[in-house]
Amino acid sequence: MKFCSECGHGVALAIPDGDNRPRHVCIQCGTIHYQNPKMVIGSIPVWEDPENDGALQVLLCRRAIEPRHGYWTLPAGFMENGETTSEAAVRETEEEAGAHIEIGKLFTLLNVAHVHQVHMFYLARLLDLDFAPGEESLEVQLFTEQDIPWDDLAFPTIRKTLELFFADRVKIRESHDKQGYGVHCHDIVRPMIAPREPD
Amino acid sequence: MKFCSECGHGVALAIPDGDNRPRHVCIQCGTIHYQNPKMVIGSIPVWEDPENDGALQVLLCRRAIEPRHGYWTLPAGFMENGETTSEAAVRETEEEAGAHIEIGKLFTLLNVAHVHQVHMFYLARLLDLDFAPGEESLEVQLFTEQDIPWDDLAFPTIRKTLELFFADRVKIRESHDKQGYGVHCHDIVRPMIAPREPD
Repeated sequence: MKFCSECGHGVALAIPDGDNRPRHVCIQCGTIHYQNPKMVIGSIPVWEDPENDGALQVLLCRRAIEPRHGYWTLPAGFMENGETTSEAAVRETEEEAGAHIEIGKLFTLLNVAHVHQVHMFYLARLLDLDFAPGEESLEVQLFTEQDIPWDDLAFPTIRKTLELFFADRVKIRESHDKQGYGVHCHDIVRPMIAPREPD
Repeated sequence: MKFCSECGHGVALAIPDGDNRPRHVCIQCGTIHYQNPKMVIGSIPVWEDPENDGALQVLLCRRAIEPRHGYWTLPAGFMENGETTSEAAVRETEEEAGAHIEIGKLFTLLNVAHVHQVHMFYLARLLDLDFAPGEESLEVQLFTEQDIPWDDLAFPTIRKTLELFFADRVKIRESHDKQGYGVHCHDIVRPMIAPREPD
């Protein structure tokens, strides 16, 4: 930020009265420009194949945009003004995967503090198989747990969410008290883009 | 937003290529200025009085700033870049109430879409009684459930969080399977500032 979005004059870093950290403050009109973390919201679209003993598959998108062009992700994107978190999850799933879902519960809330983001993923039930890549996806595909491209996932929050999802599946199958999916909050402290393992 | 924060020229509303909603776009340098919801994060600081049979009290702050000057709130504020959601809850509790807490689990996630905010409150255990109002508080006080100033709470998300907290307390006391606090996600659709009842 170099200029004031209200009056067009220059901004300078200064600690406003009553504040305790530097902000971009307009040298002309005094407007304080706060910068705050953003939310990235997505879904875990699940298809339980009725013709294959209910075998579970998850819908992933291969990214057509940077960062991480060509890598696989759950459908997700920046939350917009005027919508709720679950509305954002439904919209992003529609936009990126052309997929129609019944949205479920919040499943993960993952802090990615070093990039000023909070990622949230909702459980979701895919309503039909009528999906197709949107503008930001190269392809969209259903994967069983065994087939998920674990080494080609776009972001640590995608891996974490999928790992937690399949771990909860095991617990749900094994539990005798009809335990449901949890809500999982974690902090991602590694870099967003993990270096690839050497061949 | 009237001016580009990158080059200082004017901005105009336009739908960028590949996008589907109007954004502020610089007419000179083409920078797209996205506007996204903000997170307001706080805590429910709980004191269980060891000298009074563990009677539970919650710490509230009376606001010294607008909006809702003079009304009672849980300590909360805008999340800052570079911190996690629970770090934000600890910091706001320290800043607004001068209170030291052990942070617990996420308890509420409340969408307030019409003001482009998501509010989150964490369970917290007050570590000592050495609290004092910060710059944004007129006073800070412990309240039992019966004493909470229900008609003078600052925001619907504060009321909702406190209602859910005390409802979960009842369930926890009555449950025989050591049920814990839940994670509650709701959308607040009424106006943020409720009109006062006529005298």
